[in-house]
Amino acid sequence: MRVTRAAICGSDLWPYRSMPRDDAGRRMGHEFIGVVEDVGSDVTSLKAGDLVVSPFLWSDGSCVFCREGLQSACLHGGRYGFDGVDGGQGEAVRVPQADGTLVALPVGVDDALLPSLLTLSDVMGTGHHAALVAQVGPGKTVAVIGDGAVGLCGVIASRRLGAERIILLGSNPDRIALGREFGATDVVRERGQEAVERVRELTQHGAHSVLECVGLEQAVETALAIARPGGAIGRVGLPEHDSTPTSVAFWKNASLGGGPAPVRAYIEELLPDVLEGRIEPGRVFDRTGSIEDVPDGYRAMNEREVLKFLIAF
Amino acid sequence: MRVTRAAICGSDLWPYRSMPRDDAGRRMGHEFIGVVEDVGSDVTSLKAGDLVVSPFLWSDGSCVFCREGLQSACLHGGRYGFDGVDGGQGEAVRVPQADGTLVALPVGVDDALLPSLLTLSDVMGTGHHAALVAQVGPGKTVAVIGDGAVGLCGVIASRRLGAERIILLGSNPDRIALGREFGATDVVRERGQEAVERVRELTQHGAHSVLECVGLEQAVETALAIARPGGAIGRVGLPEHDSTPTSVAFWKNASLGGGPAPVRAYIEELLPDVLEGRIEPGRVFDRTGSIEDVPDGYRAMNEREVLKFLIAF
Repeated sequence: MRVTRAAICGSDLWPYRSMPRDDAGRRMGHEFIGVVEDVGSDVTSLKAGDLVVSPFLWSDGSCVFCREGLQSACLHGGRYGFDGVDGGQGEAVRVPQADGTLVALPVGVDDALLPSLLTLSDVMGTGHHAALVAQVGPGKTVAVIGDGAVGLCGVIASRRLGAERIILLGSNPDRIALGREFGATDVVRERGQEAVERVRELTQHGAHSVLECVGLEQAVETALAIARPGGAIGRVGLPEHDSTPTSVAFWKNASLGGGPAPVRAYIEELLPDVLEGRIEPGRVFDRTGSIEDVPDGYRAMNEREVLKFLIAF
Repeated sequence: MRVTRAAICGSDLWPYRSMPRDDAGRRMGHEFIGVVEDVGSDVTSLKAGDLVVSPFLWSDGSCVFCREGLQSACLHGGRYGFDGVDGGQGEAVRVPQADGTLVALPVGVDDALLPSLLTLSDVMGTGHHAALVAQVGPGKTVAVIGDGAVGLCGVIASRRLGAERIILLGSNPDRIALGREFGATDVVRERGQEAVERVRELTQHGAHSVLECVGLEQAVETALAIARPGGAIGRVGLPEHDSTPTSVAFWKNASLGGGPAPVRAYIEELLPDVLEGRIEPGRVFDRTGSIEDVPDGYRAMNEREVLKFLIAF
């Protein structure tokens, strides 16, 4: 695949912050769109010239978990940038298991929808996953924890699934403003116990559905605290801590689920809404640059100067 | 209500073990059947002479949570033996919110089905709740952790809901034998990491549905470890620890739910199966005694000499 668009993910910032300096570099990136240059002899569903999007994980599409729609648990799948596989923040990627992984896009290589289509590789599918696990649906009151790209896509997904009320927990004015445009009906800027009390004021008994899109310990604890009795928490923030104080959820029969999103399972479902303009998740990209700009894109995202950085090749 | 049958619950053993000696005594018990002696002026659905069973919690039947079938979160409900309300291990109980709480039984006061009907007050409904939260259904492989009365009722519930395979994790020979009669297809006698490995050998990828019917830290950790990617854990064992190492569940997208069972919601559904003999949860009672025998019943259950003690008045 010749990569034409790629993105920097919030999870890319983890090694950015923690890796020791190493002049050898490391393959990075797992959100990308590009043009198929050539295919292996076993590949049947794609051909050179196809514009395709890749989910953030590759998967065979045929194992028991892929057939169940849990491609993130594929028995023969894996992660970009590991085990000798290329990363998406580069000029080209050899995609393993291409038939099971890639999805052809019915648009031109410079289509205006490319930013939104690129979010199908991760953040839009991940927000959708959180909403599904949190059992969002008509009539439900939803709380979305986190105003990052995933949280904002969680707002889009919640409105798309018919939520009656969407409370966005976040503090960045620009991101909150975008969240309101995406469908957030209420905003809670407080954190910790103050946020819990504010959500209780707004909802009386708590939220039916909670989307945990941060992963930090306090965010998970807030999610458990603001769930309504019988409610469901969908967590997609990478867990900062191994341990979770679940007994608060036990006493009110709230469920805690979620994990790495099987975004491959959701691309076909979300694609028509992107193509027909019903959802515009690409608006989470607030800066675009070339491959040379990527180091500065990491810096800017790390400093929260930029919400999400798009790389145009 | 004049109590005619009552039971000692595993949870009654917690204060038995931990309460300081106190000659004043304390009201105990929350599983009971009896005859209505008189009703308050607001009660419309019951009359003197009715044989009724009580769920282990009382609830109004009309609040938002009761209407949703989560009577264990009733806004005006509560627990027997607390806040001046009687306990079920006594000759008579004044039941608050009688219309919302009690269910009339269409049998005679000495019917042979009374032990099974008595389990609808707690252990059968609780096992059923664990199975529902764990999404037990046709074709599923189920693991039930715990060979106590709740775990054994979880086996009954799993078979009733169509599970293909039911693995019972327990070590007591008599209880395991009863579990096999209830529908367990496999037994794992090991504990901890050995149990996890044994379940993996039996299932390859783990169990679709895990019923956690113990509550001890090791049992919860075993539940998380043996769930299949995408699986569901229904926990009904009272949590011994506040904290749970949930990140293992996150990485495989397994959900953790459950809590105090809304057994009131399940009585109507389970009652026909008991009345028509399709399920026999009353077989968990392996000793019967009078009110005078209750102290020895506690002792015998605490020493695991008895599985579950039935009190006949």
